[in-house]
Amino acid sequence: MNEHMSIPICTRMDQATIADLATGSAVLGTGGGGDPWIGRLMASQAIADYGEVEVIQPDMLDDDDLVVVVAMSGAPTVLVEKAPNGGELDVVWERVVEYAGRPARAAISWEIGGVNSLFPIAAAARNGVPLVDADGMGRAFPEFQITTLNVGGVKFGPRFVTDEKGNVLRIDGIDAIWLERINRRALVAMGGSVVSAIGLTGADIKRAAVHRSISLAVAIGALIRRGREEKTDWHTELRQICGAHDLFRGKIVSVERRTEGGWVRGHALIDGLDSDRGRQVRIDFQNEHLLARVGTPGAWETVLVSTPDLIAVLDFETGTPITTEGLRYGQRVTVIGIPCHPLWRTPRGLELAGPRYFRWSIEYVPLETVALG
Amino acid sequence: MNEHMSIPICTRMDQATIADLATGSAVLGTGGGGDPWIGRLMASQAIADYGEVEVIQPDMLDDDDLVVVVAMSGAPTVLVEKAPNGGELDVVWERVVEYAGRPARAAISWEIGGVNSLFPIAAAARNGVPLVDADGMGRAFPEFQITTLNVGGVKFGPRFVTDEKGNVLRIDGIDAIWLERINRRALVAMGGSVVSAIGLTGADIKRAAVHRSISLAVAIGALIRRGREEKTDWHTELRQICGAHDLFRGKIVSVERRTEGGWVRGHALIDGLDSDRGRQVRIDFQNEHLLARVGTPGAWETVLVSTPDLIAVLDFETGTPITTEGLRYGQRVTVIGIPCHPLWRTPRGLELAGPRYFRWSIEYVPLETVALG
Repeated sequence: MNEHMSIPICTRMDQATIADLATGSAVLGTGGGGDPWIGRLMASQAIADYGEVEVIQPDMLDDDDLVVVVAMSGAPTVLVEKAPNGGELDVVWERVVEYAGRPARAAISWEIGGVNSLFPIAAAARNGVPLVDADGMGRAFPEFQITTLNVGGVKFGPRFVTDEKGNVLRIDGIDAIWLERINRRALVAMGGSVVSAIGLTGADIKRAAVHRSISLAVAIGALIRRGREEKTDWHTELRQICGAHDLFRGKIVSVERRTEGGWVRGHALIDGLDSDRGRQVRIDFQNEHLLARVGTPGAWETVLVSTPDLIAVLDFETGTPITTEGLRYGQRVTVIGIPCHPLWRTPRGLELAGPRYFRWSIEYVPLETVALG
Repeated sequence: MNEHMSIPICTRMDQATIADLATGSAVLGTGGGGDPWIGRLMASQAIADYGEVEVIQPDMLDDDDLVVVVAMSGAPTVLVEKAPNGGELDVVWERVVEYAGRPARAAISWEIGGVNSLFPIAAAARNGVPLVDADGMGRAFPEFQITTLNVGGVKFGPRFVTDEKGNVLRIDGIDAIWLERINRRALVAMGGSVVSAIGLTGADIKRAAVHRSISLAVAIGALIRRGREEKTDWHTELRQICGAHDLFRGKIVSVERRTEGGWVRGHALIDGLDSDRGRQVRIDFQNEHLLARVGTPGAWETVLVSTPDLIAVLDFETGTPITTEGLRYGQRVTVIGIPCHPLWRTPRGLELAGPRYFRWSIEYVPLETVALG
């Protein structure tokens, strides 16, 4: 999605940029990745303590550069109550560097969503390295193996995992799915959320990451900020920079949410307002919003937008994105859809992240087709 | 229990000795540790392929010798259907040696029960090192932290874990309880049973392991074999070598068993026969038999024997020990109790392994007191 956009390139992460990134990555995070405020606080504190972070483009990496992914995993409902202390970042970072046997060239985000788009800034600041303007999904997804890196055939080395108590795991998985399964079970034992790191190469990132996603998130955040401050119409501009579609306006009338198996799962019902009055939308989520269907109350026959395309729920008035754990009865919201990265629309991409993977027996139809059809 | 026994010291593990060890360790395994036949097959094959294994006493170790514990963990119901292929042993063994940075001097059993008393023989044979005549429990227990090594304050290094698919975990736990919790969750993801290894020192074993337990298990197995072959009365002799008490004779009338959370849990009801007619025994287990209570059907008011003392259920006719997953309706059995190692009767030992740890609100009373009282 990012290749043809005309957005300003982000070259430096300072306090103002972090604020915009937090907002923008909550939009691209499609409700998941944990409350961006936690990540924002950690990133802010780290650049206050260690200095601002340079942002570099993937083509500035050498093929054999070590680039460290740091991320939190677990249920966002737990993340917001059990923020990491920062020391966890150092533990897993050092293990990755020790395993690679060479210093880290940069940090990168696993997903451009919530905590995990901001978290690597803290790691970059603490280690005096730049952040790469890219991520592994172009959105957020609830499972480790659902990345464009995996679509692109990247071989993963060991994943290092730690908790706030000081337990450390090294997982040598035979593939990304086993790295996910073992980590998911272990993190439940470790308190519901963990910090992990894994090493990638410059070549991996140039070939199979989603490029310029940090810049895109910052641009989206700035747009929503200006909309709020200057009462400008951010909808049109959002469509221009990332192809977003306004899909539905309404009021949340029901939220079912349960924390289970290391995720938060559930769905929200939204009653239409204005031109959408009389219709209802049901949004299903597993950490992230995955499927939005529209119909009359109780019968959601029509798919509005489905994974791997992005679904964001924004506050009707302020444009503030709402995470799955922040959904509340009575909120007035706008549901928007954003086309996913083209890699997700390949057969391998849809196998990993299409609606059938998440057990809905529906065919994926690109957002643009539905929204314009 | 082993210090004052007059039993032959085992110095070599050959095929005949392995057979006796399998039987004897199923008695000391108190129903747990997995079907000893699986371990016996693996140990037999290994010494056929790699040669017999020398058995050494703990005092033959230097304090800083590396001694490798290898064990399977998981629900015995799964173990019996998913036997390891042997390669798993090499994977975790090599990781322990690599971490320690020195060659292994010997192998040792974590518990003298079922699979795990025989499994280290396969590892010893494959690596050309002796087996130490000792173990970490003097019986079997369902959780990693319930060992005399932990009672004795041993600090554990990383635990390496693998499965038949080739996934490998390294767990650096802050203590033995976290090594257990994380491994238990992870093994559920890894298919329900795993092979693990951890490094100990000669000093650890001399100070805090249960000594001569291999010799004891071999002696018990030989006794039961002779009883079967020569129709001798093994009961008296069993009492002499390990203080065993014949507690109850009856027929199994009910078994409830479920595989959950990486264990098999449940209970069996036994109706009394002969002099025990009219009374019923209920045995509760979590991988191992943990509590035997006697009463009239439906009301088990009197504790017959409780953890950490040993409970074994033997076939009435042949003396063959029956594991928790082998309990069946209609079996005619003898329930025997064996006093545990004195370390288990210390305050720290009872905290780790007494009936309250397993959530029964009863005080531990030593078997000898009940049986003679």
